[in-house]
Amino acid sequence: MTAPPHETRPTATGRALPDTQQGMRRRNLARVMHAVSAEGSLSRAAVASRIGLTRAAVSTLVDELIRWGLLEELGPERPSRVGRPGSALAVSGHGPAGIGAEVGVDHLAVCAVDLRGAVRARAVRHGANRGRNPGPVVEELTGLVRRVVADAEREGLWPAGLAVAVPGLVARDGHTVVHAPNLDWHGTDLGALLPTGLPLTVDNEANFGALAELWLGDATPRDFLHVSAEIGIGAAVVVDGQLLRGKRGFAGELGHVPVRPDGPRCACGGRGCLEQYAGEEAVLRAAGLESREDAVGLLARQAGADHEGVRRALHDAGTALGIALTGAVNLLDPESVVLGGALAGLAPWLLPALEAELADRTTGPACPVAVSRLGHEGPLLGAAHSVVRAVLDDPATVAERL
Amino acid sequence: MTAPPHETRPTATGRALPDTQQGMRRRNLARVMHAVSAEGSLSRAAVASRIGLTRAAVSTLVDELIRWGLLEELGPERPSRVGRPGSALAVSGHGPAGIGAEVGVDHLAVCAVDLRGAVRARAVRHGANRGRNPGPVVEELTGLVRRVVADAEREGLWPAGLAVAVPGLVARDGHTVVHAPNLDWHGTDLGALLPTGLPLTVDNEANFGALAELWLGDATPRDFLHVSAEIGIGAAVVVDGQLLRGKRGFAGELGHVPVRPDGPRCACGGRGCLEQYAGEEAVLRAAGLESREDAVGLLARQAGADHEGVRRALHDAGTALGIALTGAVNLLDPESVVLGGALAGLAPWLLPALEAELADRTTGPACPVAVSRLGHEGPLLGAAHSVVRAVLDDPATVAERL
Repeated sequence: MTAPPHETRPTATGRALPDTQQGMRRRNLARVMHAVSAEGSLSRAAVASRIGLTRAAVSTLVDELIRWGLLEELGPERPSRVGRPGSALAVSGHGPAGIGAEVGVDHLAVCAVDLRGAVRARAVRHGANRGRNPGPVVEELTGLVRRVVADAEREGLWPAGLAVAVPGLVARDGHTVVHAPNLDWHGTDLGALLPTGLPLTVDNEANFGALAELWLGDATPRDFLHVSAEIGIGAAVVVDGQLLRGKRGFAGELGHVPVRPDGPRCACGGRGCLEQYAGEEAVLRAAGLESREDAVGLLARQAGADHEGVRRALHDAGTALGIALTGAVNLLDPESVVLGGALAGLAPWLLPALEAELADRTTGPACPVAVSRLGHEGPLLGAAHSVVRAVLDDPATVAERL
Repeated sequence: MTAPPHETRPTATGRALPDTQQGMRRRNLARVMHAVSAEGSLSRAAVASRIGLTRAAVSTLVDELIRWGLLEELGPERPSRVGRPGSALAVSGHGPAGIGAEVGVDHLAVCAVDLRGAVRARAVRHGANRGRNPGPVVEELTGLVRRVVADAEREGLWPAGLAVAVPGLVARDGHTVVHAPNLDWHGTDLGALLPTGLPLTVDNEANFGALAELWLGDATPRDFLHVSAEIGIGAAVVVDGQLLRGKRGFAGELGHVPVRPDGPRCACGGRGCLEQYAGEEAVLRAAGLESREDAVGLLARQAGADHEGVRRALHDAGTALGIALTGAVNLLDPESVVLGGALAGLAPWLLPALEAELADRTTGPACPVAVSRLGHEGPLLGAAHSVVRAVLDDPATVAERL
């Protein structure tokens, strides 16, 4: 027999609140935040009816959230027919902000997102990071973080935490980059290198991209497979609104699913992995182009200009993606597949072959494939929003830090 | 923004209890049941210290569970140094029983398992069900269920529910067999055909096999991929102790993961699916044997007797399994792969090639592969135990039915 269940319960961000009176109060604070956040503005009475608590209970919770700077009053509403006029509540635009950062192969980016979801500050630095030591890269990133935090503070915000997207596998400790092949980083502990004093979370860019799609996408389902690419191919599995992380945190390695088991040798040790057919370098090689910065932009321009070799290379990449996704769809039965990151920009030339493979290899309706509208912005926004969601999911954590 | 989180919380069986005072009481009843169940026997004081509630609160919960017939007192313990002697509690061996049933291609089986996990009654009927109409098959199954229920009642038990394992895809409604190719059943609603009056759950045999492994296996992790076979190849993905079901309930279709994308056409519409290399019919064909009942037993005997063709066929099936599992392990990052069902009996001849593929295609340590000790019994036991677990996870449901 296994251990008793129900000791703790996961929140939207995967943390757990204890199942006690105190835990119930914290969950009710979260319900109030989410109700107001979902509607933009809401009276106490509307919050009460929406979450099924008494008006008195909601008022106590709201007063606390206002004291913590998480909600604000917008002033009296139009008087209702009975009782004194209610005051509309909104999520604070001057409270905590989520700081998101991205270590890309060709750029560094940082942004600040407020509790309402608006980007309030931003900084970017272009330049190749491949093969550079982590130390100087993280030092530059720290400079950008400090600049964005200062800009956010001038807007009346304060940083609730920092989340960093990296193009590699991250340990479940949430701060060690185990292996980022395109940066050539191995066992890099960003917790030790990033002395910002903010609570830190590091995650794979594909995971943050998928979360951005879940939180910000149009009608994104709660069960989907998000496929993205920078130089490698990454994927993230979202099940019932939660990221599937895997035992070591390495789930979603679609790029190393065997597509042709006797195909070319891959750096992962395998043969004929998806990356050997649909990774950026493989596609450039098949198209007869040199590897360079903004290869995706180049491929899209050439394909748009009817370059025969590029179109054929993208068609073949779409076929390989379709084969690998057939396997993934059979295993996971998601509601949809979402193409994000660089793949979104190449979708017009990848999709026909990809969808044909999925349809040919499936009886009944094939799993629908959607294209992300967040594109390259996904991982950075997902990182910043993960901090914001953590505040909405457990507002009492903010009070502990005030 | 998405809907507020935390409205309900999943239990070990995936059902949800509302997050209210009443829900908390129900969860505490479950904690008491699980604590006693895990230890075999326990005093009220020991329960209290184990689950972190006061002795008084636990006594109230225990009295209720005794009234419902779910716990029983074993009589006074050896007196402790202070206070009156405590009475040891045990999970009742005369309360509700889980009735499990299995519709196999070559047999029907039913069993009754009590809250302590002991099989208390059992009935089996051998004979091919392939191509028979669902009506007469289910009628025979109903007869077996009635016999097992009568036997269980003579032992002082009462049936809390019926769970049926089938070799096919089951809709998320929990009673409609969408497609069972080896029975040739399509859109068969067992809810309408099984007039036992018991609460009914129907699920794929691979899912129940995986749950049996999770609940009854030796040191089974909470994140694993369970692979089994009767005639087709099924798999089930367990993440943090929960079955991953997929949007339509079809997750785990490892048998239709493409292994060689240009390989032979499969009934599913695809090409070169795993079943074309490692399914029972494919292995028999490769070994030069005729299809027949107990094909797995035949293969095991021939392989054990050094039949060269059978050994080569099983080696090649192991290779194909290794290729498909490499993809699955890359996507899911499970703690282990468990071979169950018929595959367990063939493991000695499948494993070397299977493990070699996994190791060759992985950098770093390959995902470990374990062999189930439940074998063919898994799905039937998993079905019966799923009913028992539902009682332990929410004992108050039993009270509603008393």
